[in-house]
Amino acid sequence: MKAQRQLSIRQYKASGFIGEQQELVRTTVIPYQYDVLRDRAGTEKSHVFDNFKNAAAALSGEDTGDGFYGMVFQDSDAAKWLEAAAFSIAVKPDRELEKEADELISLIAAAQDRDGYINTYFTIKDRDKRWTNLLEGHEMYCSGHLFEAGAAYYEATGKRELLDVCLKNAEHIYDRFVTQGKAGYPGHPEIELALLKLYRASGDERCLELAKHFIDVRGVDKDFYKKEKQARDWTVWGNNADDHDYQQNGSPVRLQKDATGHAVRAVYLYTGMADMAGESDDEELYNACRKLWESITERRMYVTGGIGSTVHGEAFSVDYDLPSDTAYAETCASCGLMFFASRMLEIKPSAEYADVMEQAFYNTVLAGMARDGKSFFYVNPLECIPGISGVSPTHRHDLTQRPGWYACACCPPNVARTIMSLGQYAYGESDDTAFCHMYAAGETSFKNGVQLVCETAYPFDMNVTYRSKKGGKTAVRLPGWSENTVITLNGKEIEPEIKNGYAYLTLADNDEVKLKLDDKPRMIFASGRVPELTGKACICRGPLVYCFEGVDNDGDVLSLRLKSELKAELTKVQVFDDIPALSVEALRSQGKGSLYFRERPKLTEMTAKAIPYFCCANRGETQMRIWLPIVY
Amino acid sequence: MKAQRQLSIRQYKASGFIGEQQELVRTTVIPYQYDVLRDRAGTEKSHVFDNFKNAAAALSGEDTGDGFYGMVFQDSDAAKWLEAAAFSIAVKPDRELEKEADELISLIAAAQDRDGYINTYFTIKDRDKRWTNLLEGHEMYCSGHLFEAGAAYYEATGKRELLDVCLKNAEHIYDRFVTQGKAGYPGHPEIELALLKLYRASGDERCLELAKHFIDVRGVDKDFYKKEKQARDWTVWGNNADDHDYQQNGSPVRLQKDATGHAVRAVYLYTGMADMAGESDDEELYNACRKLWESITERRMYVTGGIGSTVHGEAFSVDYDLPSDTAYAETCASCGLMFFASRMLEIKPSAEYADVMEQAFYNTVLAGMARDGKSFFYVNPLECIPGISGVSPTHRHDLTQRPGWYACACCPPNVARTIMSLGQYAYGESDDTAFCHMYAAGETSFKNGVQLVCETAYPFDMNVTYRSKKGGKTAVRLPGWSENTVITLNGKEIEPEIKNGYAYLTLADNDEVKLKLDDKPRMIFASGRVPELTGKACICRGPLVYCFEGVDNDGDVLSLRLKSELKAELTKVQVFDDIPALSVEALRSQGKGSLYFRERPKLTEMTAKAIPYFCCANRGETQMRIWLPIVY
Repeated sequence: MKAQRQLSIRQYKASGFIGEQQELVRTTVIPYQYDVLRDRAGTEKSHVFDNFKNAAAALSGEDTGDGFYGMVFQDSDAAKWLEAAAFSIAVKPDRELEKEADELISLIAAAQDRDGYINTYFTIKDRDKRWTNLLEGHEMYCSGHLFEAGAAYYEATGKRELLDVCLKNAEHIYDRFVTQGKAGYPGHPEIELALLKLYRASGDERCLELAKHFIDVRGVDKDFYKKEKQARDWTVWGNNADDHDYQQNGSPVRLQKDATGHAVRAVYLYTGMADMAGESDDEELYNACRKLWESITERRMYVTGGIGSTVHGEAFSVDYDLPSDTAYAETCASCGLMFFASRMLEIKPSAEYADVMEQAFYNTVLAGMARDGKSFFYVNPLECIPGISGVSPTHRHDLTQRPGWYACACCPPNVARTIMSLGQYAYGESDDTAFCHMYAAGETSFKNGVQLVCETAYPFDMNVTYRSKKGGKTAVRLPGWSENTVITLNGKEIEPEIKNGYAYLTLADNDEVKLKLDDKPRMIFASGRVPELTGKACICRGPLVYCFEGVDNDGDVLSLRLKSELKAELTKVQVFDDIPALSVEALRSQGKGSLYFRERPKLTEMTAKAIPYFCCANRGETQMRIWLPIVY
Repeated sequence: MKAQRQLSIRQYKASGFIGEQQELVRTTVIPYQYDVLRDRAGTEKSHVFDNFKNAAAALSGEDTGDGFYGMVFQDSDAAKWLEAAAFSIAVKPDRELEKEADELISLIAAAQDRDGYINTYFTIKDRDKRWTNLLEGHEMYCSGHLFEAGAAYYEATGKRELLDVCLKNAEHIYDRFVTQGKAGYPGHPEIELALLKLYRASGDERCLELAKHFIDVRGVDKDFYKKEKQARDWTVWGNNADDHDYQQNGSPVRLQKDATGHAVRAVYLYTGMADMAGESDDEELYNACRKLWESITERRMYVTGGIGSTVHGEAFSVDYDLPSDTAYAETCASCGLMFFASRMLEIKPSAEYADVMEQAFYNTVLAGMARDGKSFFYVNPLECIPGISGVSPTHRHDLTQRPGWYACACCPPNVARTIMSLGQYAYGESDDTAFCHMYAAGETSFKNGVQLVCETAYPFDMNVTYRSKKGGKTAVRLPGWSENTVITLNGKEIEPEIKNGYAYLTLADNDEVKLKLDDKPRMIFASGRVPELTGKACICRGPLVYCFEGVDNDGDVLSLRLKSELKAELTKVQVFDDIPALSVEALRSQGKGSLYFRERPKLTEMTAKAIPYFCCANRGETQMRIWLPIVY
């Protein structure tokens, strides 16, 4: 069913903004996270490397030293770092990094039990508890991330050690759940999408079969976790086994219609489902994915591509419940939304998927990391008011500044691996066509022979040039947000065939296609069904959502009002290197009085400054707002 | 220090709107709640009467039947009902009701231990746990409500049985905490304010001394609950003993500046503090009360007089954090705010206190009860959106409709007793002056000899007439919200001495003073520091806050916009008997598009209908909003 597929990591070499982000990840984030994982960065303790060492000792019957430390899913931090490192090596060979990765892989391999099982939490703490708590134990979640790392590392280096560890682990799981027919499915989906990657890297059909198994059985016995809980005498967090929304197991996945529960689990599951639907031509599964996609993007998604409105269960709540200030909008969830979008796009190349993928990437995913690559947001609210945010009991999770690390450190390495593998999302290919989904500067080689060089200062400049070093069939996305897109071929305006938001072209060698996308700042309104956003608007330009920060606006963004006719332009003021601010004709409301008062606040003309949302919170604690009240 | 004092319940006979509310409570609410407490109303189980029976059995060493049922503070429901019944009997003698009350009093008396202890939870379940858990046990909270009932019943009937039970219980507590010097102070403040009432009813100085003791020791040892927790092996709810904000014990009360924690506990404590400050001329205590008053009314109070912004701990959160939709704004907390305001007013007759007292009463307290007196809100949000309210994890406490009863049933009887005793708040007196704080229709006799008849259709009509059957010095409040108040004496406009918002007059017999208060609907804005309320306004008229309900506005209040120039008038349409709606020139925003879209919504002129907030949610589940976006 797949109309086109993700590229492999080696096919794209980034330049421009993406290149800079990758360079930041390569030179700063990956080394920094390596130090964190080895507990050398002076941040929140990780102990990930030591967990593997101690697990290996446990397997050999030796002293396990200081034992296990961290979350039940602590292993996944190592796997995600390894995956980012693999992508980094593919992007730019680095012998030192490869050595570090090889050492970690050896540690991991040594922590694998003879039967293929790997998980340091259970291996160190209590081997008898293996597989007794799928609800909370995260064994398959950790395996999934290892499989992703194994596939990536094999692709990047050609080395099989980690791939073989993964396959042996997959075989162990296959044996348990397929051959032996043991009941159950993963508490935190992830292994489904990862098994598909492992299948593609290794060709091992059992990986595909196991992924299909977990997708098929999920929710068929919706009381599985309840029974499991009754049968065990231990718990990690005391999770409610009956919360079917949280677990996405209230019905078989093919019957699910609303995106519910823990947002990361949800989109990881949907990614696996969409990949499987495409891989196995499963129309029914695809239709379920489509419904879930609509549930998210039409009713439960922030304008930043953030998902998960509530801290309670880090979860989707209900339709149109999209509070700005108490948002959860976890960084990982927006990574997952990109993954889901990318798999939907494989089945049907339609700009709506790439639009959302880009929306999530350029706003929430990038906001997850400070501009210096050394601190990270887990939660990405659309409004920050020091004094309330991070302090009020309902806002405790909405921090005003990015911490250096987290006890639950899922997000930082997720940002790193997503940026490093952006080529997989930005481009795609069918047997005969090269697809350009995002405007990612750099050089890309497609299997159909097309070689494209993309030159652009996107997402800040909306002129995008594709030069074909080798020609061939090429499809270029025209984003939904661009009302006036001009396409020229070798300097001449053309009107190519357009289908589902993609322009289909046949390029000769050395052709030059230029896109001139709509570069005007635009005002965005929200459905009248979203209580939070009535009477408000926000400003976007290209794929970027803009925000207003106190530091640029006399310390007070609460009194800013937008005019209903937007007048805004790029300034020469650069908030960060090469990132220009927007100047916006606005109004300031000057109300006098106490808590409640009677005299109508006066509005005075002023020029407000807005910056890309992903740049927020980089200049000290300050007010921040995306949605402002509009004045007609 | 007291400049004037609350009236006793017998001095005011209500008519007009207050009379109607009292009649509703007398004929419907009190009998209904009596049935509930006896488990005859088909609602949430109460078991209150049976708890007392079973406790008496426990004391006699007999079989305790079906034991204890309910909250640890279940006894207080009986006490609050009894207090309301006492007020009701004072207002209008009722032999049947008095018989029911006497029977309940006998039950209570039989459940009192020989040493004066009364509490059915501990007496039935485990007498050894008495006084081991002040943090959660609510023993003094229940005693406090009993003392209030005892004082009221004595005042209403002259019967001493319950008063003597209370004094014996107070003596028991005095013996423990004063004579024996045992450490500790009440987890849930209430006994402080109640001991002052018991002192005034009985003249027993030890009640005053005990109240002073608990006020003085609170927070001096802020680790008391922590030590207590370490010393006990049981818990009710697993409360955090270190949450000093929640417990109002982070410092001695005289040093407290911010209203924090559980809002009902807070204002009950502050009421006791203010009463004590006035009673004992304690300037330092008064100054603390004043700071706490400002913390509430200048930074932490809803326009409805609701307090407690967050469900987490049913508590105050931080300054300017006043979400409409996820508000807690417990009914009891607004009763408590009235109590606090009334005690502050005793010390200094200033309209600001009566303004807030009225704001809390006519909006949140009255909203706590359905118009038929048979269902009740515990939580009073300022916005209700079916589909989100009561459903989203962050809005579960914000019900769209009033239930018939609650497992935790503190609020319904609190509304009943507050309405029945409104005269205590509406009027006051010093040795030489009769004070009129609220415009409560009815007849009032003051100790200075003044007898006033107040005639008015307030709060719907702003004309108030006071006729002096007997003349004398009289002070009448001029509300802060009335910009143009005209005062006439016997038909002639006068300009009396005005001090702190009170007009001081000396009336001859049969004088007629008329107040013409500002009756124009007014638009209210909020401080620019309240993120929730930027760009919004609400409508008030007199003491009433108005809301827009879907049922009056084509099902959709989210798309309503206010014009910056308010044009609104009373309609002849009465939403309930004698309660007129407001018609408001407004706009409807008609936005087209999906979740986020680009075309500016059109505004069309329309006439919206607003009703008093306290009448909301009486006509089925529907959208409701107080604060609307304004369009300039």
